[in-house]
Amino acid sequence: MEDYLVKALSGIIGEENVKTDIIDRYCYSMDASIYKSIPDVVVFPQSTEHVSEIMKFANAKEIPVTPRGAGTGLCGGAVPIEGGIVVDLTRMNRILEIDLDNFCVKVEPGVVQNQLNQMLNRYGFFFPPTPGSKKMCTIGGMISTNAGGMTAIKYGVTRNFVLGLKVVLASGEVLSLGGKTLKRSLGLDLIQLFAGTEGTLGIITEALLRIKPLPEETAVIVAPFQDINDATKAVNTVLSHTIPTAIEMLDSGSIKAVNTYMPELNLPEVDAILYFEVGGTYEEVRKQTDLIVETCKTHKSRNIQWTSDPSERQMLWQGREAAGGAIMTLDKRLVRVYEAEDVCVPISKIPEMVKKFQEISKKYGIPVCLYGHAGDGNIHSGILIDVRNQEEWQKLKNLTREVYETAMFLGGNISAEHGIGVLRADWMDRIQGLGLNYIKRIKKVFDPKGILNPGKLGI
Amino acid sequence: MEDYLVKALSGIIGEENVKTDIIDRYCYSMDASIYKSIPDVVVFPQSTEHVSEIMKFANAKEIPVTPRGAGTGLCGGAVPIEGGIVVDLTRMNRILEIDLDNFCVKVEPGVVQNQLNQMLNRYGFFFPPTPGSKKMCTIGGMISTNAGGMTAIKYGVTRNFVLGLKVVLASGEVLSLGGKTLKRSLGLDLIQLFAGTEGTLGIITEALLRIKPLPEETAVIVAPFQDINDATKAVNTVLSHTIPTAIEMLDSGSIKAVNTYMPELNLPEVDAILYFEVGGTYEEVRKQTDLIVETCKTHKSRNIQWTSDPSERQMLWQGREAAGGAIMTLDKRLVRVYEAEDVCVPISKIPEMVKKFQEISKKYGIPVCLYGHAGDGNIHSGILIDVRNQEEWQKLKNLTREVYETAMFLGGNISAEHGIGVLRADWMDRIQGLGLNYIKRIKKVFDPKGILNPGKLGI
Repeated sequence: MEDYLVKALSGIIGEENVKTDIIDRYCYSMDASIYKSIPDVVVFPQSTEHVSEIMKFANAKEIPVTPRGAGTGLCGGAVPIEGGIVVDLTRMNRILEIDLDNFCVKVEPGVVQNQLNQMLNRYGFFFPPTPGSKKMCTIGGMISTNAGGMTAIKYGVTRNFVLGLKVVLASGEVLSLGGKTLKRSLGLDLIQLFAGTEGTLGIITEALLRIKPLPEETAVIVAPFQDINDATKAVNTVLSHTIPTAIEMLDSGSIKAVNTYMPELNLPEVDAILYFEVGGTYEEVRKQTDLIVETCKTHKSRNIQWTSDPSERQMLWQGREAAGGAIMTLDKRLVRVYEAEDVCVPISKIPEMVKKFQEISKKYGIPVCLYGHAGDGNIHSGILIDVRNQEEWQKLKNLTREVYETAMFLGGNISAEHGIGVLRADWMDRIQGLGLNYIKRIKKVFDPKGILNPGKLGI
Repeated sequence: MEDYLVKALSGIIGEENVKTDIIDRYCYSMDASIYKSIPDVVVFPQSTEHVSEIMKFANAKEIPVTPRGAGTGLCGGAVPIEGGIVVDLTRMNRILEIDLDNFCVKVEPGVVQNQLNQMLNRYGFFFPPTPGSKKMCTIGGMISTNAGGMTAIKYGVTRNFVLGLKVVLASGEVLSLGGKTLKRSLGLDLIQLFAGTEGTLGIITEALLRIKPLPEETAVIVAPFQDINDATKAVNTVLSHTIPTAIEMLDSGSIKAVNTYMPELNLPEVDAILYFEVGGTYEEVRKQTDLIVETCKTHKSRNIQWTSDPSERQMLWQGREAAGGAIMTLDKRLVRVYEAEDVCVPISKIPEMVKKFQEISKKYGIPVCLYGHAGDGNIHSGILIDVRNQEEWQKLKNLTREVYETAMFLGGNISAEHGIGVLRADWMDRIQGLGLNYIKRIKKVFDPKGILNPGKLGI
């Protein structure tokens, strides 16, 4: 099988773009999740035509195909669960067009978020969706998971920025969708259909994205709260008047983790710290900063810090940015495992979700730090377990179940921006309900043989 | 058939909610488009359960069902082309919940945009999407056509505001989708699938919508340009720095029409007039107004007017608001007909689209006035013909074809916000291309018997 595969694929895209060495294949057996599965072959297409030919071949032979960007996903979306072909799209990483007359860019799927923004910033523009993995994650992956990130509260999520797509279907057919207009009412919107489907319906080979002008000024406000309930009230009051660029949060566990990791930051060990970022004209930023500082004071925050100075801003952000890494170093015997790491609740329910999460953590004796996007109710968790201990895995499973049930009970959902992949595939019945039957049938419409990223999304 | 229908439907929702009188049925044979087709019966459900029972019955008996909001659609989307049952949803018009803690509202589909906003304004909030028909159009219709309107450039289109939906399928099954969170990455997003599909996949019976805080201050700037190219350059320069709430435009024809209709407005008879609206804090509005005024001056606009005074603002808007009505009165022998009325082009192509549209108008001797949303390239047209003259209809058809081909050649599309309905159904092959095969198959997944709004969207 393998020889045959290699020969056929080499014929399509050249021998140099086909890897079968066990070391290469091992590297492509994983993403940033807990899953591993070794593919039969890894290919590196460099054009839509390459991807189309690969799909025609794979479809004819019914070989599973798993598309892959940077592999930063936390749910196994890019893990080739059923083996077959991994299609690495990172060599399709050209910015094809920057159209400042129409405020859009055309890119290949392997372009990295940060790379795109560095280019755009030179012209005074930016692409707003900002996942935590912005320095590595690709645009293709962002569209496929409908990535959100810090700025979603103000600017929206990735799907809101996709004006056009080129998508290769399971059959190898190529759909060219959308164009350089902000509006379209043309019936069923296939762009919106593909966004967030993690490569199960087609492989994105080109994207046309909306861009926005950079704000003239930015400020950061950091406000500690003795009680997370007050923090949430402050968030609500602020959002009743204005929409900041970001509202981030650290819970007490994350604060302690950061202080252990970077004692020099000396964060106040309170119930919650809020980080606000505001952007706009100088006048607007001054006004928004005043509003936020006053609101936080009213809700009992003390020792609030704020600045619009670029290097001071970076200093203030350090606490929030260190959280992910800090958690990993809390206990050297334990490993951070991504489970229950992306729940989302209505923002008024954040305190309840956080308290309940902390209780569940205690109940199972599994250390959990919480942080994330207080402006949109998206709470990330850093969970540490002894991965060599089978019992801990079982506990983690139970903890996850309780956390998901709590999020759903509070009117939220189990993934805000990371996606479903393998990790949450078993939950899709409960999440999508009756809708899952229809989603499965749509999957069949696009991929009757089930070769595109099989084993994902519960379909 | 009719007796049987009435009896069955009366059994489901009560005799008083079933109309079969020819006068009633005639009223429901049309929307605001050029199409007419008389239904067999009109029903007025008052709950999701009603709609579900109606669909179960209709599906079993294979009777066409056309859902309908306010009937303001311009493409025949609500016209029962194949007869059968019209489901009027305007009695399902309750605002079910206003949740200011989570910045959302839950409404029934028959709630009118303006009615919702009047309610929300009392609390300092609003629902941004603003079609021209805001005083009449319903939320259900807005979602079904992915309505845009004036504020799309800043806030986005209707689909961006839908957090949740309740949808009754052809089978009568009820899907409950989404919730009070701004983010979700749960695979295929059925909410986004239903948005814009004009009731061909299901009937919306409830919607959860995101709302935003009202700006503290608003200003309007009106800038006349001797050359539409300069107007577009001004739009581009403004959008490179800030995103106003609205950027509207009148072409020379629309200006003349408005001056004929309301001579007291005495608009300058130039190539194009731009209307900008900006909103935000007092400081922000002052700054944005300065920027826009200076930019327009740089691009050769003279006699610019601006104000933040509410009654003066309304006065300034009059010219733009009168355009639609003014066009109808230009020549009493002619009737305004909605065709080629909603094209969209990349904003840099507006001058070319307008000039070409004016040329095509001259070529066929059909008077055309152009106006619309310069910030997003959406150009509306007022077209007048002698509707009793068969030849004029043929000319109109040819004019429309040339206009659509021009819009597509310029990288645009044939409908920005009005939809497809019957009017543009024949164009869907060209517009959706290969994608239409897949859309037709998705239609079959949801509505295997083809009873939901048949004859629409080319599916």
